[in-house]
Amino acid sequence: MTRIVMKFGGTSMAGIERIRIVAQRVKREWEMGNEVAVVVSAMAGETDRLVNFCREASSLYDPREYDVVVSSGEQVTSGLLAIALQAIGVPARSWMGWQLPIRTSDGHASARIEDIDTQALGNSLTNREVAVIPGFQGLASGERVTTLGRGGSDTSAVAMAAAMKADRCDIYTDVDGVYTTDPRIVPRARKLKRVTYEEMLELASVGAKVLQTRSVGLAMKEGVRVQVLSSFVEATDDPEPGTLIVGEEEIEDMERQLITGIAHDKSEAKVTLAEVPDRPGAVAAIFGPLAEANINVDMIVQNIAHTTGSTDVTFTVPRAELARALDTLEKSRGEIGFSKVIHDPRVAKISVVGVGMRSHAGVASRMFDTLGARGINILAITTSEIKVSVLIEEDYTELAVRVLHTAYGLDAEDEAA
Amino acid sequence: MTRIVMKFGGTSMAGIERIRIVAQRVKREWEMGNEVAVVVSAMAGETDRLVNFCREASSLYDPREYDVVVSSGEQVTSGLLAIALQAIGVPARSWMGWQLPIRTSDGHASARIEDIDTQALGNSLTNREVAVIPGFQGLASGERVTTLGRGGSDTSAVAMAAAMKADRCDIYTDVDGVYTTDPRIVPRARKLKRVTYEEMLELASVGAKVLQTRSVGLAMKEGVRVQVLSSFVEATDDPEPGTLIVGEEEIEDMERQLITGIAHDKSEAKVTLAEVPDRPGAVAAIFGPLAEANINVDMIVQNIAHTTGSTDVTFTVPRAELARALDTLEKSRGEIGFSKVIHDPRVAKISVVGVGMRSHAGVASRMFDTLGARGINILAITTSEIKVSVLIEEDYTELAVRVLHTAYGLDAEDEAA
Repeated sequence: MTRIVMKFGGTSMAGIERIRIVAQRVKREWEMGNEVAVVVSAMAGETDRLVNFCREASSLYDPREYDVVVSSGEQVTSGLLAIALQAIGVPARSWMGWQLPIRTSDGHASARIEDIDTQALGNSLTNREVAVIPGFQGLASGERVTTLGRGGSDTSAVAMAAAMKADRCDIYTDVDGVYTTDPRIVPRARKLKRVTYEEMLELASVGAKVLQTRSVGLAMKEGVRVQVLSSFVEATDDPEPGTLIVGEEEIEDMERQLITGIAHDKSEAKVTLAEVPDRPGAVAAIFGPLAEANINVDMIVQNIAHTTGSTDVTFTVPRAELARALDTLEKSRGEIGFSKVIHDPRVAKISVVGVGMRSHAGVASRMFDTLGARGINILAITTSEIKVSVLIEEDYTELAVRVLHTAYGLDAEDEAA
Repeated sequence: MTRIVMKFGGTSMAGIERIRIVAQRVKREWEMGNEVAVVVSAMAGETDRLVNFCREASSLYDPREYDVVVSSGEQVTSGLLAIALQAIGVPARSWMGWQLPIRTSDGHASARIEDIDTQALGNSLTNREVAVIPGFQGLASGERVTTLGRGGSDTSAVAMAAAMKADRCDIYTDVDGVYTTDPRIVPRARKLKRVTYEEMLELASVGAKVLQTRSVGLAMKEGVRVQVLSSFVEATDDPEPGTLIVGEEEIEDMERQLITGIAHDKSEAKVTLAEVPDRPGAVAAIFGPLAEANINVDMIVQNIAHTTGSTDVTFTVPRAELARALDTLEKSRGEIGFSKVIHDPRVAKISVVGVGMRSHAGVASRMFDTLGARGINILAITTSEIKVSVLIEEDYTELAVRVLHTAYGLDAEDEAA
């Protein structure tokens, strides 16, 4: 008996007509004899509406009450999907987070799933009943409703799949899989058949937003096979295979490539502090206050010291936090001791990602050569075991992605549809 | 320590600005040192929206899933009111029906409250915390969410008041109390200070819709003192006293009047079957099939038999069911044996209600005289211990209500505001 979890996002649940299409798709899997649990998001826009109610009621809202309010969106869609399934002859019932229950930490509004009781659910599945489960919600130790933070339904689905020991967790999204890069920039981008958890984490965290990062981390930890599929294919058609996210051991040598994908991210801004005294503790004086202000610093480059005994320090912060970052730095100018701050929000981070680079040298240098040949200036560099990222001027983003896509041999023979 | 339940309907909860006004009103009671539980409806229009989703998903929706969907409306407003209360310094928390729990029958979509566990709630109230409770919802024996049927939040409030042994149950509505009759028809209608449960039941069931009938029946059974108040007075003003609904023993002789109020109801239609054979079983042959078709028959008049051995039978059915009733009768024409059906939806039922008539003769004859003097024809009559109802042509509705209001001495000295 194959057990699968299917997860549908807000666009798929936006209105009864769409919910009917989802029901057809679930019926297909159920008719094949599979045991099926479905995790659903709220209707597109609904969570925003509910969050706004809470904010209007009080800017300092109680997260426990916020959770009561915003968890209602998924409650509605799970009930409606159960009705739509029954209407086409599929036995189905909804299970609220508190009914299973899905136990979470007490961190209201951003709780973490700790344990899912699957006994009653298992009996229901064995009886050929489809289980419909609202994503994003759970139950804290005090028997109060929790939510998992925005985008949490992906995590709910992966956690359900782990708890149920499901053979597969199919995530239906606006895109039909994970691509070597953004197909809007590179028409010859290829859909990946398989990608490793680690690669997916790097691709997600640098801007290729298909799945919530936390859900990928959980899938990796629990060994859940996740498939990303398009929710926009006709429910009656054979579903187009999506991208399977699996452990590295499942990727066969034949299909293994040096580089899996190229990501770009325009959400950061560059800050340079000029003439910081080159002495122990200088870096701590910069990044301590930023950390205290809860500003995430990403890339950091410290230049070689000038002969004057001072150095320039360059780093990136989220664009949305730039003003706050500058303010924080200005307040610490005394301790840090820089001569001036230069900042530029018009930068982009370009990353090449692939587990293949673990065993191959020369990935980074090919990247620098390729960009250099096109006159693209590199403002900063960071690397990890399976990723090389460079910061460039924003205007060069598309050009950089295209030339790198070709340079690493990722172009498909035909353009993507 | 005074314990009170306050209940606010959908109009009072329609949007954050209104919810803030409700919060101020709750704060007033709480600041007086009262222990306060608040029962709330969904935002106006929200339950309709959710019911329509269910109907769209399937005309034969599973009532268990319907309950999951529609109960979300009150979940949202209870969370938001808790937030709004905290924002003005009042400790508050929401309690879902399943959290207390409010135990109900298994009759999904129209469940009846059976028992409310008030232990945790009581501790919370003792700690000066305001409890916010979604109306309309409860928990069935199978640990699934139930709802009580439309208008069920009034019943929730009265049941909470009974379970908590509250001193008072204040129901805030669109009107500021119960009037001797509809003030839109009779500007000199008076607001009643007190009305008995029985009178309120008769007034409600004949069209003076202030409270859900079931809630009044429950209040009578449990001896809950219910007060109907306007939700549209400034929250900071001293609330205008509303109408208190109490047992007959609480009404002092001084304020007791022969007639308490005059109600009108245009929701029924008149049906006459001509020349029904005057033999045993004839009436059963008429009303049996209507009962089977779930059509409520209200007033029934059987005329004196003609010398021909046949009789005319007149009765009323809900206007909305008239077509179905005629169809049902036509199908049973063979067994009943009437010569023709005459029907008229343009009728109105006018009722005079008052516990005073128990000890006074002449109430009915004064009604007939008053209407007769104005040339208003009486089409049918029914009476109960505390009510006399007549059926008249719809066009005379307002005239009849006005002349009766004067005839029974109900006119106020000044016109109502």
